Amino acid sequence: MKSPIPFCSRLTSNEQLLWIDKLSNLLPEETIRPCSELSDLERHAADFAIVANPDPKELLTLPNLIWVQSVWAGVERMLEELPNVSFNIARMVDPNLSKTMSEAVLSWVLYLHRDMPAYLKQQQKAEWHQHFVAQPEEVQIGVLGLGELGQVCAKRLKGNYFRVSGWSRSQKELEGIECYSGEEGLDSILSQSDIIVILLPSTPSTKELINLETVKKMKPGAQIINFGRGPIIDEDALLYGLNTGLIKHAVLDVFNREPLPRSHAFWTYPSITVLPHISAPTNPDTASVIVANNIRAYRNLNMLPECVDVKKGY
Amino acid sequence: MKSPIPFCSRLTSNEQLLWIDKLSNLLPEETIRPCSELSDLERHAADFAIVANPDPKELLTLPNLIWVQSVWAGVERMLEELPNVSFNIARMVDPNLSKTMSEAVLSWVLYLHRDMPAYLKQQQKAEWHQHFVAQPEEVQIGVLGLGELGQVCAKRLKGNYFRVSGWSRSQKELEGIECYSGEEGLDSILSQSDIIVILLPSTPSTKELINLETVKKMKPGAQIINFGRGPIIDEDALLYGLNTGLIKHAVLDVFNREPLPRSHAFWTYPSITVLPHISAPTNPDTASVIVANNIRAYRNLNMLPECVDVKKGY
Repeated sequence: MKSPIPFCSRLTSNEQLLWIDKLSNLLPEETIRPCSELSDLERHAADFAIVANPDPKELLTLPNLIWVQSVWAGVERMLEELPNVSFNIARMVDPNLSKTMSEAVLSWVLYLHRDMPAYLKQQQKAEWHQHFVAQPEEVQIGVLGLGELGQVCAKRLKGNYFRVSGWSRSQKELEGIECYSGEEGLDSILSQSDIIVILLPSTPSTKELINLETVKKMKPGAQIINFGRGPIIDEDALLYGLNTGLIKHAVLDVFNREPLPRSHAFWTYPSITVLPHISAPTNPDTASVIVANNIRAYRNLNMLPECVDVKKGY
Repeated sequence: MKSPIPFCSRLTSNEQLLWIDKLSNLLPEETIRPCSELSDLERHAADFAIVANPDPKELLTLPNLIWVQSVWAGVERMLEELPNVSFNIARMVDPNLSKTMSEAVLSWVLYLHRDMPAYLKQQQKAEWHQHFVAQPEEVQIGVLGLGELGQVCAKRLKGNYFRVSGWSRSQKELEGIECYSGEEGLDSILSQSDIIVILLPSTPSTKELINLETVKKMKPGAQIINFGRGPIIDEDALLYGLNTGLIKHAVLDVFNREPLPRSHAFWTYPSITVLPHISAPTNPDTASVIVANNIRAYRNLNMLPECVDVKKGY
């Protein structure tokens, strides 16, 4: 008899059950069980596991792992918590990602555009006060990062009538979207944008791209959304911008440390919306199919899916 | 010399100045001034005024008004507060209305779809917790009211990948949108919709359309947005739905009495978002042009714009 597949996560038990349910339906020949419920013998027999933000201590109770399948796209935390990891890690590559991300970008752009932060604060004070709404054609959105994700997001904003420009390291051409590149291009897009959307990857050259100097180049009263990575924004520079009114509001979904520590100033900052890294979460339906296919290929053909280069981190 | 045109409103002085500025630019031959700053003589000379949610006491200091131009679409409150009104009222008919409204509908549908109420509550408790996001193709939006506004909104939601159905008194045909009508159709759409968007006018037949009986027919956990009129929802039935979990969250922009009284339970209700009637506010740029044209036609040709039938109320 095959030994059960451990599922290791820090999800709530309801969420964990949802995953196990979906996966079990697609893999009736397997038994998938929460890692915590397995016997020592079963843990030793496990040569692979399914993980979702796993507790490193729990993973260490599985000494014979050859690989793990993450149902999340991001595995940076796992790599950080298990610096001497000896097994392979397959991260989730969801084909729906750019659509889900563009929906998130549109949702939080509209959140800022339609003044939701102000209305939610007013409700707390039982205050009835209407704000003007600009026409979207008068609102300039600057998308930083024009990879596949950035391009889909820029087009979706354009389709919803906003004026959109984009910035990338190397010059791009996109219909209906003014494209900037390089240092000078960055200054231009920052000085024009009412809402800045960060969709850049975390690399040495994007580290603290938003710093004291670039904050001062922004259009006064600009708003900012970070769906890229935490280190792209220098936290002190952001707070300076918010305190001086140079920046009106920030929506932050990514941070230097995640989960954002409970003591962090961002949580209680009135002009910051803190989101728990949810711009483009995995869709369990499409992701389960991918996981099931990977597990079958391993069982039947002894093939591993494409795995993360542990040294590079992606 | 022409006497100055009084501007009467309960807007903040900044907002009032913005209107006066825009209108003065378009009407350099006129002097437009806050009503409160006019002399008695000037008030008696005024045969018309520009208004935005005016204080009835202030209007009564203008005894010789023939007509007023409202820069707002809604004039119900003015009619209520001045039951024996003796002058004509031109309300604002903004050609941008359906686009602005469809943006509001999309914005607050995304607010609910992307679980913003939950994330905003979590921030208050410094809680890091991710919720699943359904694919929009799996989310059924039911639009109640398929007049011009409702049709534009339904199509915009469809264009953003949601599954959309609509309901109206008389049967409509709309491409890609399942249309229902009549009593039976109402039961069907209520039982299927994850998010219900109310865009109905206030008429005897829509009064308390959402009542204890219809709330019980809703899909459990449905969410509701009211951008129509307050009386369409029976408040006690809504609270029953929210208390029992039949309804997950309500976004309310319109109320039986506006502004919503400070003592009203809705303000502090955790699963209600209160908005101050802002789904489709007038755009000052396009509206100023309309007002300027109406004033010129009156001055030069002695023509009044189309006015509200005071007895019917619209």
